[in-house]
Amino acid sequence: MVIIMQAGAPEEEVEAVIKAVEKTGFRPWVNPGVERKVIALLGAMDAEKIELVDHFSALPGVERVTLISEPYKLPSRRTHPDPTVVEVGPVSIGGAELAVIAGPCSIESREQMIEAAQAVKESGANLLRGGAFKPRTSPYSFQGLGVAGLQILAEARELTGLPIITEVVHPGDLEIIAKYADIIQVGARNMQNFRLLQEVGQTGKPTMIKRHPGCRVQELLTASEYVMLEGNPNVILCERGITTFEHATRYTFDLSAIPVLKRFSHLPVIADPSHATGDWRYVTAVALAAVAGGADGIMVEVHPDPTVALSDGPQSLRPEKFADLMRSLRQVAAAVGREVRQPVAQ
Amino acid sequence: MVIIMQAGAPEEEVEAVIKAVEKTGFRPWVNPGVERKVIALLGAMDAEKIELVDHFSALPGVERVTLISEPYKLPSRRTHPDPTVVEVGPVSIGGAELAVIAGPCSIESREQMIEAAQAVKESGANLLRGGAFKPRTSPYSFQGLGVAGLQILAEARELTGLPIITEVVHPGDLEIIAKYADIIQVGARNMQNFRLLQEVGQTGKPTMIKRHPGCRVQELLTASEYVMLEGNPNVILCERGITTFEHATRYTFDLSAIPVLKRFSHLPVIADPSHATGDWRYVTAVALAAVAGGADGIMVEVHPDPTVALSDGPQSLRPEKFADLMRSLRQVAAAVGREVRQPVAQ
Amino acid sequence: MVIIMQAGAPEEEVEAVIKAVEKTGFRPWVNPGVERKVIALLGAMDAEKIELVDHFSALPGVERVTLISEPYKLPSRRTHPDPTVVEVGPVSIGGAELAVIAGPCSIESREQMIEAAQAVKESGANLLRGGAFKPRTSPYSFQGLGVAGLQILAEARELTGLPIITEVVHPGDLEIIAKYADIIQVGARNMQNFRLLQEVGQTGKPTMIKRHPGCRVQELLTASEYVMLEGNPNVILCERGITTFEHATRYTFDLSAIPVLKRFSHLPVIADPSHATGDWRYVTAVALAAVAGGADGIMVEVHPDPTVALSDGPQSLRPEKFADLMRSLRQVAAAVGREVRQPVAQ
Amino acid sequence: MVIIMQAGAPEEEVEAVIKAVEKTGFRPWVNPGVERKVIALLGAMDAEKIELVDHFSALPGVERVTLISEPYKLPSRRTHPDPTVVEVGPVSIGGAELAVIAGPCSIESREQMIEAAQAVKESGANLLRGGAFKPRTSPYSFQGLGVAGLQILAEARELTGLPIITEVVHPGDLEIIAKYADIIQVGARNMQNFRLLQEVGQTGKPTMIKRHPGCRVQELLTASEYVMLEGNPNVILCERGITTFEHATRYTFDLSAIPVLKRFSHLPVIADPSHATGDWRYVTAVALAAVAGGADGIMVEVHPDPTVALSDGPQSLRPEKFADLMRSLRQVAAAVGREVRQPVAQ
Repeated sequence: MVIIMQAGAPEEEVEAVIKAVEKTGFRPWVNPGVERKVIALLGAMDAEKIELVDHFSALPGVERVTLISEPYKLPSRRTHPDPTVVEVGPVSIGGAELAVIAGPCSIESREQMIEAAQAVKESGANLLRGGAFKPRTSPYSFQGLGVAGLQILAEARELTGLPIITEVVHPGDLEIIAKYADIIQVGARNMQNFRLLQEVGQTGKPTMIKRHPGCRVQELLTASEYVMLEGNPNVILCERGITTFEHATRYTFDLSAIPVLKRFSHLPVIADPSHATGDWRYVTAVALAAVAGGADGIMVEVHPDPTVALSDGPQSLRPEKFADLMRSLRQVAAAVGREVRQPVAQ
Repeated sequence: MVIIMQAGAPEEEVEAVIKAVEKTGFRPWVNPGVERKVIALLGAMDAEKIELVDHFSALPGVERVTLISEPYKLPSRRTHPDPTVVEVGPVSIGGAELAVIAGPCSIESREQMIEAAQAVKESGANLLRGGAFKPRTSPYSFQGLGVAGLQILAEARELTGLPIITEVVHPGDLEIIAKYADIIQVGARNMQNFRLLQEVGQTGKPTMIKRHPGCRVQELLTASEYVMLEGNPNVILCERGITTFEHATRYTFDLSAIPVLKRFSHLPVIADPSHATGDWRYVTAVALAAVAGGADGIMVEVHPDPTVALSDGPQSLRPEKFADLMRSLRQVAAAVGREVRQPVAQ
Repeated sequence: MVIIMQAGAPEEEVEAVIKAVEKTGFRPWVNPGVERKVIALLGAMDAEKIELVDHFSALPGVERVTLISEPYKLPSRRTHPDPTVVEVGPVSIGGAELAVIAGPCSIESREQMIEAAQAVKESGANLLRGGAFKPRTSPYSFQGLGVAGLQILAEARELTGLPIITEVVHPGDLEIIAKYADIIQVGARNMQNFRLLQEVGQTGKPTMIKRHPGCRVQELLTASEYVMLEGNPNVILCERGITTFEHATRYTFDLSAIPVLKRFSHLPVIADPSHATGDWRYVTAVALAAVAGGADGIMVEVHPDPTVALSDGPQSLRPEKFADLMRSLRQVAAAVGREVRQPVAQ
Repeated sequence: MVIIMQAGAPEEEVEAVIKAVEKTGFRPWVNPGVERKVIALLGAMDAEKIELVDHFSALPGVERVTLISEPYKLPSRRTHPDPTVVEVGPVSIGGAELAVIAGPCSIESREQMIEAAQAVKESGANLLRGGAFKPRTSPYSFQGLGVAGLQILAEARELTGLPIITEVVHPGDLEIIAKYADIIQVGARNMQNFRLLQEVGQTGKPTMIKRHPGCRVQELLTASEYVMLEGNPNVILCERGITTFEHATRYTFDLSAIPVLKRFSHLPVIADPSHATGDWRYVTAVALAAVAGGADGIMVEVHPDPTVALSDGPQSLRPEKFADLMRSLRQVAAAVGREVRQPVAQ
């Protein structure tokens, strides 16, 4: 941490800051500059000390405080240099084989879910998605089938052998969701629902946290710390687009978040081109790009008939388009030293 | 709702869309244009029909669908032309007297809270704030005193006579918070925690919803619909800055959100210059501007000694600065036909 | 300037950076920390040295470089603590009387311009605006009357006695514009057209620079340095909204930019609510707010009949609405210790 | 164009709008809805009619006007369905072989430029970049060698056989630049310097327009119309990152802009990962992603020794890193059916 004093801050103010630093157990190291003082804190600076930034910032004469260390610890590469591989049944997320999570946005019926599950499996997906509890912007939108949806999803797992991921939106649903899901998803809108993160962490289950479209990469990593601090190291991060001034797409897929996350964290990174673009026409391009840019997998919405979908129809791929995507993805994955599961002969 | 077909979409696709429209109970009205067709839906279009946008968007040959009606109903001026006034004990939020909500970010101790409460009352504040359950970006930050904090806050209410507002972050805390608070605050990070919104709505208590810094005004209004649909009309909206590329301030205070909200909604609007700017130096300017721009009140962080605050020190005003702010605010309020409570003679 | 080394950067890399610092004439001051080194540069750091940030950032082992000093000099309060007042004929921009710049977006005809000029004068405007050379997003839009427009504008000045401001978009037009205009406007889209800024600076005429909607406040200040370095201290800054994800208004008016600019710079600050909102319904609220927040004036588009305007009709006020705005503005200005010229009795 | 009236707009207002539509030569088509009227304009709607949006928006009773057609014509796929291939000497930009534009940000000396040119050629670049006139944010930054730089660049072309691209920042320099350059670059900051665009169009030379970081894709396409309207079809578009709230990278590379541009326009699209990220560590990931996502080429900054670069050192690749990038790019290009020139045996 480095404290930058205002130019010409009086000697008493500099002294007061130095005393405040000493009180916190750090050793102050002050430059002898005449115009303005810079005070570095010597000693091990942990994420636990993050509040000192605010504390010192509020002192008279302080221009600003620069945090040098990262504000998180467990997701950092510095504490864990090797990449984390999250094992989910037979699938290793973060390994050589890409995670390809596919399925409908919402579970709408047994028939729809099973049909989608079989289709994506045939094309080479290795994980199955489906929403049972849906966080919808409008209260008039379909809110999901709830527990009945979970049962259908579990049946789809039985039939295909693919592990399943589904979202939790309320702490009261967590117990039942944890019983069914192989991976618990914390959706973008709950990325900073910190109490939920802690409770999800306590389940010990593999957890995928989606980045809120209005939050920085650093905030995503700090959110993951809430889960990991509960003793749960099985965290997967997901980039799904950020809110910007451009509205040719629903959100702006932040491609460089992938190498940034890879540089600062050891956790696996998944890309969600469906939510990022909001338009099936752009899903394949963004999926291929994400993998070329280093993503450990993709999450794609696939629906047997998007025109009758109860949610996210415009961004859902038909099964045959998804099969095309997978063929192209196999090429791109190979080009960057990764693999995609082969299609299943019917 | 207006459906815009792609230029040159084949006749079958246009026909299919027309049929789809008819199936939903609307009457399609198609322009006879040769280049591209535009299909307007005739019939009463309610917020309940919002999902049709997605449905029609996913049909082949559709370029895009434009929603004409608002995606919310209860917070709209069209369903409720007169401004709502939320009564909180002796205070009328949305009336001629401005709501001035002041107090510390977190309740840290009995002494700190009482001192802050008395100071803001003396300057003319008419509502008291204080956080007992805190949603903190870092798990290493102070998370609040919990129920002990609520008790201190209630004691401050006793002493000053000012109604209190405090935040709920977890459904499990709602019952106890509703017992203590006069206004329940849904913080920015929970603005789209839809299940929490519903449960808060069920308490029937006056509720203030803060805009998420990554969400549009329209999303704030749709969030308020979740509360109102539970039969709770006592909703207050709060603008507290949005995330933009500018980082001279922590967030960018969206001043024009005030007249926009006032145009489309009947709900009272509060401005929070403390969180918007993140710097006490800018709080007064933004507070005065918000009131000149039509806000029904402000929410300001005040701490007896910001340099020892456990949260938000850099953006908290000392009591004497707050007194200055209130003196200026009285002038500006009068200039736009509003009032601010007079200071209490000591 | 402070250079932050990567944690665990090898000794040779630290040594190399220290040598690089010494070569630039600064004295390096290194913290004795074990985990990571921080190197402060001792010596007078001027805006002229800004390139050192890039230079040091590119050295091996450097995590990042923090610039402590401002990257501009002449517009800074540190080099010029007192506020600048720009004298334009009888008007003092930055003094107690607010600058109220009003008139049509484009000069369309003699009749339209004269009518607008007389109307805004009667309501108390003290400066006249009108575009003769227009930078239009579409090449099919009206591009302005050119020199003929300047002549009409000059005639409006004769008739009303109000000084005039008009925009330059091409260096080749600068000479003729400088002959007519009392203030030269550099529009938002040219804020970083640095060669144009220099040439405008050489005219010595009062110059108003509008902030580009995609640029930070700091970039606006650095742009103003280009003009001031040519020996022209008569620079006026203008906030006119930034591009954000919110599209309830055309741009987001950055209210806090006003106190931020006032803190870091001595230059006068004007607010343009017309371009910021793009909608006449919000112009008055934003204008009042800007003045309550500390602006030295406003620039407002007024057109005798917005429905026939060749540009910016939807954001232009009719003369009677502008008169209303001015009546409210007089109250708010008084509340913050400023004045607005009285209306002219007809 | 579709005009949406306010709910409950009185009959006279609807009539007035209908008359206004008829006056413009279009036939109004009005829905018979009771709640609110929607008026579609029948007749060929061209980009030339873009101003009608503003005209109708300003009429009383109008809620908003939706433009259905694109606000540009010549860059549109609708007027030119086949992809444009811009021929630059032996290089075809937009063809199967990717355009790989590489070289230093600024031409600093003969030695530096020649060394960079030879290195990038050896790795398989097929176009050479180098700035002679630089638009720098700070007036204290290196502004380029000017004409001397152009001469050095031309010499590098002689030696390598690679066509050259360089930027114009002032109309007065255009003649001399057009004499030297094979492609004229209009930089991001001049994307909306419309008069410059027209003058560049008049040269008839291949022109690359970089997207302003604060502008939408649609604005980039409208900017290209300024060049094409002068009879110059040889336009290349370049995505180089947009300004967002995320500051882990200098800008946010808008990956989906590539498929969006490809959908709406026939012009070739180049990606600039150097400016987008501002950090050499992320350049390769973004370059690979851009090509996987459909870009027709990349523009990358390469400097023999970034630590002594006079501009953009931190984002410049050393020649050996660039060689690595090219090896990976060859794989990814092949995976999506494109080619990259082979390295030159030394």
